[in-house]
Amino acid sequence: MAAPSLDLSATAVDLTRQLCDIDSVSDNEGPLADAIEAAVRAHPHLDVSRVGDTVVARTHLGRDRRVVIAGHIDTVPINGNVPVRDVEVDGEPHLWGRGTVDMKAGVAVQLKLAAELAEPDVDVTWIWYDHEEVGEDRNGLRLLAAAHPELMEGDFAILGEPSNGHIEGGCNGTLRAEIRTRGVRAHSARSWVGHNAIHDAAEVLQVLQSYRPRSIEVEGLTFREGLNAVMISGGVAGNVIPDECVVQVNYRFAPSRSVQEATEHVVDLFEGFDVRVVDAAAGARPGLDAPLAQEFIDAVGATPQPKYGWTDVARFSALGIPAVNFGPGDPTKAHADDESVPVAQIVATEESLRTWLSRA
Amino acid sequence: MAAPSLDLSATAVDLTRQLCDIDSVSDNEGPLADAIEAAVRAHPHLDVSRVGDTVVARTHLGRDRRVVIAGHIDTVPINGNVPVRDVEVDGEPHLWGRGTVDMKAGVAVQLKLAAELAEPDVDVTWIWYDHEEVGEDRNGLRLLAAAHPELMEGDFAILGEPSNGHIEGGCNGTLRAEIRTRGVRAHSARSWVGHNAIHDAAEVLQVLQSYRPRSIEVEGLTFREGLNAVMISGGVAGNVIPDECVVQVNYRFAPSRSVQEATEHVVDLFEGFDVRVVDAAAGARPGLDAPLAQEFIDAVGATPQPKYGWTDVARFSALGIPAVNFGPGDPTKAHADDESVPVAQIVATEESLRTWLSRA
Repeated sequence: MAAPSLDLSATAVDLTRQLCDIDSVSDNEGPLADAIEAAVRAHPHLDVSRVGDTVVARTHLGRDRRVVIAGHIDTVPINGNVPVRDVEVDGEPHLWGRGTVDMKAGVAVQLKLAAELAEPDVDVTWIWYDHEEVGEDRNGLRLLAAAHPELMEGDFAILGEPSNGHIEGGCNGTLRAEIRTRGVRAHSARSWVGHNAIHDAAEVLQVLQSYRPRSIEVEGLTFREGLNAVMISGGVAGNVIPDECVVQVNYRFAPSRSVQEATEHVVDLFEGFDVRVVDAAAGARPGLDAPLAQEFIDAVGATPQPKYGWTDVARFSALGIPAVNFGPGDPTKAHADDESVPVAQIVATEESLRTWLSRA
Repeated sequence: MAAPSLDLSATAVDLTRQLCDIDSVSDNEGPLADAIEAAVRAHPHLDVSRVGDTVVARTHLGRDRRVVIAGHIDTVPINGNVPVRDVEVDGEPHLWGRGTVDMKAGVAVQLKLAAELAEPDVDVTWIWYDHEEVGEDRNGLRLLAAAHPELMEGDFAILGEPSNGHIEGGCNGTLRAEIRTRGVRAHSARSWVGHNAIHDAAEVLQVLQSYRPRSIEVEGLTFREGLNAVMISGGVAGNVIPDECVVQVNYRFAPSRSVQEATEHVVDLFEGFDVRVVDAAAGARPGLDAPLAQEFIDAVGATPQPKYGWTDVARFSALGIPAVNFGPGDPTKAHADDESVPVAQIVATEESLRTWLSRA
């Protein structure tokens, strides 16, 4: 098969189709990263770097402010939803298929403008990165920040994660913990010799079932929290009393709480049980009071919303760079097998971003 | 490696050592079945048949009664507990290692007597069979009963399953069912969009936790029941609200209950949930009122006990042949990594069986 290529002179809608039809499920971003790199290298106003399967393209116009605009190029696994199709949802034209929402429409808008805007009002660092949909350890943006922090520098950042074309500020933090019960194995024909660890998990599930998550206001945005079991496993064989049961819970917490505070909350809730935090990431405060953020909000002309999901805006936040989410597509459709993005949102996002970047 | 062979003139204790040192984990019974077949074929008083990895050896002395004596030759997986070792437990000599309890000591006693007793008081059908420790569908005794019912014929059966050298009559039935809860998937950052199926399993576990199993007397023996979760699973990914949770329960029920009654009991307990029976086997009534059973009880001279675990005695029971468990070893040690059998029990079992079979 010939290596795929991209035509950045196409419309952002057509470019979304091109991007979606190139398989880039996490761990297979290489061909798409190659196509992106080749396409942006054709534009002499961009200084292009490649780090793994992450492509960085920067303008060097001597502007006094720099904006970082980033998007991940990987998707969750395809499930019969490629190639992309044109469909109507509620009478509105949509592009349907894996990646349309999360987040190739956003990447298409970025690529289109990166190629087109040779002289934006601010210097721009465009970043298209790999491995966002899998473990933290391989996240391309994390690795870029660690190995080449100079490529991440900027005064404001925009992440193209789906946000229905609105600005979503900050993000909740996320913590995963294993709650473990222990018993004593025995043959199930003589269960009274053992102790059933799965039965003991009843209490853990009751805590979860009766938990009432809070809504917390941070810098004017209301962040809704959540605490859920995401995995449960236990059992040795069909005739053995199980000696262990593990419930993995995911706590999404408002950005006003630290990881330490979130950990204490979970440990308190499951007092008496063996609780182990397996991963955690702080949220990001909205940061909407930064001057560039205010200008961007004014340009887009809509009230910012909180972002519930953890996104890589938190990485910019951790580097002291105010960052928002801004991209086409309904985030509740991310990862859904029927994900589809309204064509009008692609066009509107593109126009807002073009207007703002060209406003001088 | 040379094909293993067996010396049936050795003591039953030494023969146990020989048997344990031949790996016969389920699906790998071939070499041991070959060795058993070759060893019993050397004795002209035995009419030997081979069906798969099951070996049948029959006397044809024209006695008016026939006893079937059977044992399985496979074991659960080895876990660093072979070769067999001589150890002391509470000051008593034991053979330690995989299969010593379940049930190569029992098979050793049977092989020893099969070779030795050329003229027993009753005709004897010795059966050594494969695949007892795995799925019902491959059980050698089940397949023998289906393909060659004539080889199973008899007036009384003794299964050499570990029973501490006592007679254990009948067995509990066993039923496995899956109790399923269903929810709606969503990203865990927006958990309120979904419905958590794992949380709903709290109620299933509460039913199990508060269940008080009954003890039921059947033909003078008290059978203790049990209902336990043996497996639980649920969850899609660390950031997804799970849409399904499955609790597999194992119900051990007294032989006075039919599979149908046991099923109804479980369905009633989990009313409102999706309950699917995945496998079930009726128990076996003790059958101790059969004349040969009475004679055997008198010869061994001990009070019969109920067998809690389901054993292949139920297959004889289903064919209308009264059957008991009688073998060396503590059944609670079956499958344990530290299984070990008291040498004295091997010797006592051998003597009881020899005395009874030679009593004429």
